Amino acid sequence: MGKNTVLSHFLASHPGARYSISATTRKPRAGEKDGKNYYFYTPEQFGDLLQAGQLLEWAQVYDEYYGTPKAPIQQCLARGEIIVMDLDVQGALAVKKSLPEAVLVFLLPPSLEDLGERMRRRGTECAQAVDRRLAAAKAEISRARDYDYLIVNAEVSRAVAQLISIVEAEKLRVSRQSLILSTLEEGGSIGNC
Amino acid sequence: MGKNTVLSHFLASHPGARYSISATTRKPRAGEKDGKNYYFYTPEQFGDLLQAGQLLEWAQVYDEYYGTPKAPIQQCLARGEIIVMDLDVQGALAVKKSLPEAVLVFLLPPSLEDLGERMRRRGTECAQAVDRRLAAAKAEISRARDYDYLIVNAEVSRAVAQLISIVEAEKLRVSRQSLILSTLEEGGSIGNC
Repeated sequence: MGKNTVLSHFLASHPGARYSISATTRKPRAGEKDGKNYYFYTPEQFGDLLQAGQLLEWAQVYDEYYGTPKAPIQQCLARGEIIVMDLDVQGALAVKKSLPEAVLVFLLPPSLEDLGERMRRRGTECAQAVDRRLAAAKAEISRARDYDYLIVNAEVSRAVAQLISIVEAEKLRVSRQSLILSTLEEGGSIGNC
Repeated sequence: MGKNTVLSHFLASHPGARYSISATTRKPRAGEKDGKNYYFYTPEQFGDLLQAGQLLEWAQVYDEYYGTPKAPIQQCLARGEIIVMDLDVQGALAVKKSLPEAVLVFLLPPSLEDLGERMRRRGTECAQAVDRRLAAAKAEISRARDYDYLIVNAEVSRAVAQLISIVEAEKLRVSRQSLILSTLEEGGSIGNC
């Protein structure tokens, strides 16, 4: 019922969509491949990307750095692909700043109580950690007004359908279809595109 | 394959959506009912609405006036209903000006050639009228950049599905969901809404 379930169902239903690959300075775990699970960089390489303005967003988690390299995203976008990123509020707003065409969708829990319940049921965290994460979630929700869309994740099939509607609708935005307009104006045919 | 087919399929699939009723000064035809097909007004009544700023858009066609009264639309919106209007470019842009939350969707023909073909097949107009309407269509298309969304009406089932996606996505816009956000922030539950 969580965010990852919604994302994996969405990706399965959209063969043209790709999950964004993050860069990290942490060491690969067993089975992880460079360029598939992550781009594995040294702290120096990561620092160079950062200084060159080649990261759409980045964050430090404990002693390691994580971020989204700009170049592979731009290549995907140029091919007309849909890129899906799973980001916290700070990362999402940073991406929107460098890529104004990005679409920010906030997945809301049906209630904060429900979110705490899910965390406790998962049982991987102590009560204190759950409280801390709930407080963080509440702070993030207060910034949802800076997003484009909100989805209440009460039922996974419904949330996936809503995410699909958003992606399908966004493809039809005038700002993404200037080629179609100029083709028509020049007397061309658009056919079944 | 025309605009009306797309609209009627959309309305059939969305029981919550209503087709907007226009006001007109023309006389009712046999079987037409006031408040159902049109609001039938005298020229004086129409003029009063216009002067009071109570028309979202209006136009003169030959000797008669047509327009969209504001009050019934505002009542529908307050009840959370979806209102569908079928407007020319001038009307659509006028509506957007008074109701910035309006969503403008431009239904494009796959080509101007195809549009001319459809008009000729319908056979209700002479070649000269078809040429005139094609020129008007071309002029309208050039203003599609002021709309929110474009749908290429090449295949009716696809165009209807795209219109449904747009409506579903627009319901999820942050600007239309401030109630959900404040409920969550106050510790409430949103449930399966």
